[in-house]
Amino acid sequence: METVLHSASRELRIGSEHPFCIVGERINPTGRKIFQEQLRAGDLSRIEIDVAQQVAGGAMMLDVNMGAPLADEAALMVAAVKLIQGLCDLPLCLDSSIVEVLEAGLSAYQGKALVNSVTAEDERLDAILPLVRRHGAAVIALPNDEEEIPQDPRRRLELVRKIVDVATGRYGIPIEDIVIDPLAMPVGADTSLVLGTLETIRLVRDEFGLNMTLGASNVSFGMPDRASIGAAFLPMAIASGLTSAIMDARSPQLVRAVKAADLLTNKDPWGASWIAAHRAAQAQAQAGT
Amino acid sequence: METVLHSASRELRIGSEHPFCIVGERINPTGRKIFQEQLRAGDLSRIEIDVAQQVAGGAMMLDVNMGAPLADEAALMVAAVKLIQGLCDLPLCLDSSIVEVLEAGLSAYQGKALVNSVTAEDERLDAILPLVRRHGAAVIALPNDEEEIPQDPRRRLELVRKIVDVATGRYGIPIEDIVIDPLAMPVGADTSLVLGTLETIRLVRDEFGLNMTLGASNVSFGMPDRASIGAAFLPMAIASGLTSAIMDARSPQLVRAVKAADLLTNKDPWGASWIAAHRAAQAQAQAGT
Repeated sequence: METVLHSASRELRIGSEHPFCIVGERINPTGRKIFQEQLRAGDLSRIEIDVAQQVAGGAMMLDVNMGAPLADEAALMVAAVKLIQGLCDLPLCLDSSIVEVLEAGLSAYQGKALVNSVTAEDERLDAILPLVRRHGAAVIALPNDEEEIPQDPRRRLELVRKIVDVATGRYGIPIEDIVIDPLAMPVGADTSLVLGTLETIRLVRDEFGLNMTLGASNVSFGMPDRASIGAAFLPMAIASGLTSAIMDARSPQLVRAVKAADLLTNKDPWGASWIAAHRAAQAQAQAGT
Repeated sequence: METVLHSASRELRIGSEHPFCIVGERINPTGRKIFQEQLRAGDLSRIEIDVAQQVAGGAMMLDVNMGAPLADEAALMVAAVKLIQGLCDLPLCLDSSIVEVLEAGLSAYQGKALVNSVTAEDERLDAILPLVRRHGAAVIALPNDEEEIPQDPRRRLELVRKIVDVATGRYGIPIEDIVIDPLAMPVGADTSLVLGTLETIRLVRDEFGLNMTLGASNVSFGMPDRASIGAAFLPMAIASGLTSAIMDARSPQLVRAVKAADLLTNKDPWGASWIAAHRAAQAQAQAGT
C-alpha cells in the first residue's frame, strides 16, 4: 500500500517498497523553553535553523507542532506552515490535538498534508476525519479509545479495524491515506512494552498492509544513550513492518540505522545510496568540515 | 528452548528468555596474515590479546578456528583450547571443517562445547554427529546440502527438519543441543538475500523454537561502514528470533546494539544492565582511560 503526500512541488511516497520515511520531529516546542518563549512572542526565526538541520540530516517530511502554552496555536500553525513551505519543499505533517489548529494548518498548506492525529474515540473520529476528507489529506491514527491505551496488540488491532471502517465507510477516505501509529511506549517505564509495539506492527501489516509511523523518541524516554536505543529499535520495527517514523533527523546514528535497515530490507538497490552516503561523509571529513 | 554449555567452571544458557549470546569471532586466522604466520610457527601468543579484548568487549563464548594454510590444524586446536581455557572461563565454540580437528579439540576441551559446524549433507551428518554425541557437546547446523545453499527459506526449513530428524532420531542428540545457523549472506552480493535470512529465522523459531546463531560479519562483507550495517542487522535478526551471533565482540557499536536489543525485547529487567553499562562507560571516560 502506498501513501502519497506532496508539498507544492514535491511528491513523497510511503510504503514497504520505498525507502523508510524519516519525518523530522524537531519543530515542536515540547520540552524547549526558549522556543516556547519565542513562539509566544511571535518569533518564528528558530524554525529556519530547525528546517535546515533536519533537511541536512535526511528528513523526508517535517512534523509541525505549535503547541506552546499560552500561545495562539492556530495563528502560529498558519504562520509556521507558510514559513516552512517557503524554506523547503518537503511535505508536512500537521501536528496538533486541537481541531481548529489542524483546520487552520490545512487551509494554509499547499499540497497534500499528513494530519497528526486522530484516535479511535468516536468524538475525535467525527471531528477530524471530515476535515481530512475535505482537504484531501492523509491522517495518522492511534489505536486507543475513550477507555484506554490497550496493551494487548490484538485489542489495538480491533481499534485499527474500527478506525479503518469509520474512515473509509463513513467518511470516504481512501484506505491508503490512513497511517497507523502503533503506539511506541517508553522502555524505561516497563521493559515489556516494546514487544507489544512490535507485535502490533506485525499484526497491522499482516492484516491490513497499512503504512505505519510512530514517535521513535518515546521508546528511549528517560534512559541514557537514547540514540543507541533508537538505533536498535528502528531496525527491529522496520523488520516488523514499520514504514515511517517521526524521529530526530539530526542524529547521524539514527539516520544511519534507518539507511542500513533500508539496505538490509532491499530498499537500496546495489547498496548505491549506502555507498554514496559513505563517500560523501568521507569527502566531508577530508575537507575538514 | 535452552541450550546449556559450559567451560570447566562456568555455565552459559542460550535461549529466547536469556540475554543474546555474543560469541567472539576473533580467534580465526582467516584474513589475518600475521596471525597465520604465527600459527604456522607454533606461536599462539596473539591469542592472549584476542581473548582479553573479546572478554573486555562482552563476549560470552569464544569461537576458536585454527584453519591456517599449511599448519597442523589439529595440534593447533588442542594447544589453543588448552591455552584459552587457562586464560578465561568462557565456554568455547570449536570451529573447523575437518572432523579430526573437531575430535582433537573436543578431547582437549573441559566442559560442554559447541561444535561449529555440521550441514545437512549425509556424509557430514554421519561424520560429525556421532562425535557430538560421544562428547556430549552441542552443535551448530547449517541448512545446506550437497546440491545447494537454498535461497528459499521454506527449503532451508526442510533441511533444518532433516538435520533435527537425523540428530535426534539416528544419533540421540537432545533437540536443545542443535543450534541452527540460518545462513547470513552478504548484502553487498545481493541486497535481496538478507530478507531470506530473516524469514528463515522466523520460520525456524515458529516451527521448532530452536536456538540460532550466525556469522554476523558476513552480512556487511565488502561494504563500507560495516559496524553500522551489523548494528542494524543484529536487532532485526533478534526481533525475528535469533538468540546468538558469532560477531566482533570488540566493537562497542555492535555490542551496544545487542544490549539495546536485549533491553527492547525484555531481557534486561528494569534496564538495570543498560544503565549500569552507561555509568561504567561514563566513569571510564571521566577517568580519562
